[in-house]
Amino acid sequence: MQLLLDSGSGGRASQRLIADIFVRHFDNAILRRMDDGAVLPVRGPVVMSTDGYTVTPLEFPGGDIGSLAVHGTVNDVAMMGARPLYLSCAFILEEGLDLGLLDRIAASMGEAARRAGVHIVTGDTKVVPRGACDKLFITTAGVGELIADPAPSGSLARPGDAVLISGSMGDHGLTIMARRDNLSFMSDIASDSAPLNRMVEKLIRGTGEIHVLRDPTRGGLATTLNEIAEQSGVSCVLEETAVPVHENVRSGCALLGLDPLYLANEGKLICILPRERAEAALDIMRSDEYGREAALIGEIIPAVNGRPQVTLHTRMGGGRLLSMLEGAPLPRIC
Amino acid sequence: MQLLLDSGSGGRASQRLIADIFVRHFDNAILRRMDDGAVLPVRGPVVMSTDGYTVTPLEFPGGDIGSLAVHGTVNDVAMMGARPLYLSCAFILEEGLDLGLLDRIAASMGEAARRAGVHIVTGDTKVVPRGACDKLFITTAGVGELIADPAPSGSLARPGDAVLISGSMGDHGLTIMARRDNLSFMSDIASDSAPLNRMVEKLIRGTGEIHVLRDPTRGGLATTLNEIAEQSGVSCVLEETAVPVHENVRSGCALLGLDPLYLANEGKLICILPRERAEAALDIMRSDEYGREAALIGEIIPAVNGRPQVTLHTRMGGGRLLSMLEGAPLPRIC
Repeated sequence: MQLLLDSGSGGRASQRLIADIFVRHFDNAILRRMDDGAVLPVRGPVVMSTDGYTVTPLEFPGGDIGSLAVHGTVNDVAMMGARPLYLSCAFILEEGLDLGLLDRIAASMGEAARRAGVHIVTGDTKVVPRGACDKLFITTAGVGELIADPAPSGSLARPGDAVLISGSMGDHGLTIMARRDNLSFMSDIASDSAPLNRMVEKLIRGTGEIHVLRDPTRGGLATTLNEIAEQSGVSCVLEETAVPVHENVRSGCALLGLDPLYLANEGKLICILPRERAEAALDIMRSDEYGREAALIGEIIPAVNGRPQVTLHTRMGGGRLLSMLEGAPLPRIC
Repeated sequence: MQLLLDSGSGGRASQRLIADIFVRHFDNAILRRMDDGAVLPVRGPVVMSTDGYTVTPLEFPGGDIGSLAVHGTVNDVAMMGARPLYLSCAFILEEGLDLGLLDRIAASMGEAARRAGVHIVTGDTKVVPRGACDKLFITTAGVGELIADPAPSGSLARPGDAVLISGSMGDHGLTIMARRDNLSFMSDIASDSAPLNRMVEKLIRGTGEIHVLRDPTRGGLATTLNEIAEQSGVSCVLEETAVPVHENVRSGCALLGLDPLYLANEGKLICILPRERAEAALDIMRSDEYGREAALIGEIIPAVNGRPQVTLHTRMGGGRLLSMLEGAPLPRIC
C-alpha cells in the first residue's frame, strides 16, 4: 500500500492515517484527545529543544529515522539539565511512500518513546507530491522539566575541569556511511542511537555539579568540543589513547580516510565537571547500560592568548590541533 | 549566493549560516546562548503544538512560508486556551537554495514573531542534497501558558452553543491556488495569515466561558466543524448567508469550481460558546484588527440519531449536508 496525496489534505483520509498509524503506535491519554495541541501537566522552568531528521537510509543497523528522532530530541533536552517528558512530532511524507515502512517507523518511534519514558503528545502530517521530498522527514520537539540548578551550558567549562565521554566515538556516522555505500564488509557496525536521559538524571543527582553536558552528534567530538571551547572561552586538551573507539570503527575509518573524532554519535554524551567529581561521574556512567565504556579523555585549560582551541595529545606523543569540521559535508547523517 | 551542502554539516559553515541569518533575525537573549535547547521561564500547565510547513510558492500575497510558520503554530497554541510564548523552528533546506530568499523568509519569521509577541528560542538546520526536498520546509513547535480554565477543546461543544467565525473564509487557500496556477486576474486576493493570540486572550478574559476554539486551516470550515461535531458528539447547523466570504473569493471559487467552506484559512478562528455569551464575544472579535468581519454563523444542536453532522441552510432556503473533505487533495497549501 502506498501513501496517497489525499492523506495530507486535512480531511477524512488524514484522520484515517493518523488513527491507523500514529495514534495506534504512540497511544497515550493526551494524544487521544485529538486537539491541535496538548495541555501538559509540567511545572517550570521548562526546557525545549527541536531537531529535524533527514537520515538516509531510513532504516539502518541499530535503529531507524523514527527511533533516532525520539532519542535525538530526548538527548538534546536532557543535555540542558532537564528531564524530558513530552515530544511533538511533525512528519513530511512523500506521496507514494510505502505504508508498511511508515508503520514500522511509527512503531519504532512509539517503542523508543516508551523506553525513554516520554510521551508523544501532539503532531502534524503533511504529504507532498512525488519528488518534493525524499520519502520521509521527521521533526520532533521536546519539552522537559529543568532538574539541574544551575543548568549546565556550553558556556560553563572552566580551567581544571575534567572532560568525560560516555562511550565509543563514530559508530553512528560510520554505520550510515557504510550502509549508504553498501560496504558489506562493515556488517558488524551499528548505530549507537540511544536515550541518555536516565544517565543524565543520575549524573545530575549523583555529582551535584556539572558544568557542561553535550551530545557530540553532527561534526562529532572534535566539533562539539570546539563549540564548547568557544562558548566558554577556554581550551581543551584530549588524550588520544583515552578516547574510546571500537576496533571495527577504527579500521573502517582508516579504510575510508575518515576520522572517528569528526563522525556523528547518537547515543553518547560529553560531561565536563570539576576534576574532583570525575570519578563519581564515571562510576555513574559505567553503571548505566549506555555508559559502560565511559572514560576520562581530557581536561579544560585556559585559552592560550585568548584563543580557544582543542588539542589532541596523539598516540605517538605529539600534539595535533583539532579544528571544527570544515568543508567535509556528510549530508543526511541524522 | 546559493546554500552549500556544507552548511548542514554541523561544523563551521553551519555556525556561520545560523549566526548570519537566523540569530540575526530572531535575536533574543535565550537564543543567543546557542545551547542545544532553551530554558524557558514558564509556569505550568504548559500547552504545546507543532506544525510542518511545506507551502508552495514560498512567497505569496499576504505572507510567506516564514510568517505562516509563526502564525500557524502561534494560533494552534492559542486555540488550546493558552498564551503562546516560545517557538522552536527546524529548517530543512535544499542545497543550492538562494540565500537571499532564505534571508527574506527568516526576516519575515522574526518580524512575525515580534508582532505576535513570541520568541524563537531554539532551532535546527539540515541541508539535504539537490532534489531531496523542494527548496525549503519549516517545522515550528510552540509552547505557551494555559490561561483558560477549563481549557477549550474540540470535545466541549454543547447543544445550544453559538458558532462564531472571526472573519471571511477561503482567502488563504484561494490565494495559494491562484498564485500557483498563475491566475493573474485574481491579483487582488491575499492570504489572511495572521496571529490570533491577542484576540484569543481577550476572548478568554472577556467571555468567561468558551467551549471550543479552533482555526479552520486545511480542509476549511466544513472539515473543521465536522471534526468538532464528531469529537463532541453533536451536530451543527450553519446559515450560508451568515458566513463571510469576500466577493473576490466567491467569484474566484465559482470560476475554479471550489467551495470556500473547504478552503484553508490561516488567520481565522471558530469560537463555540454558550449562546448568551455570543454578543460579548462578537464585540471583542470585531474590536480586534483581525476580527472586524466576525459573525455568528450557526448553532450546535443534538446529534440526530447519534450521528454527528454539519448542515448548511443555503441561500436558496434548502439544506445541504457538509461532509468532511474527502478525496480532493490540495497539497502544500500550508
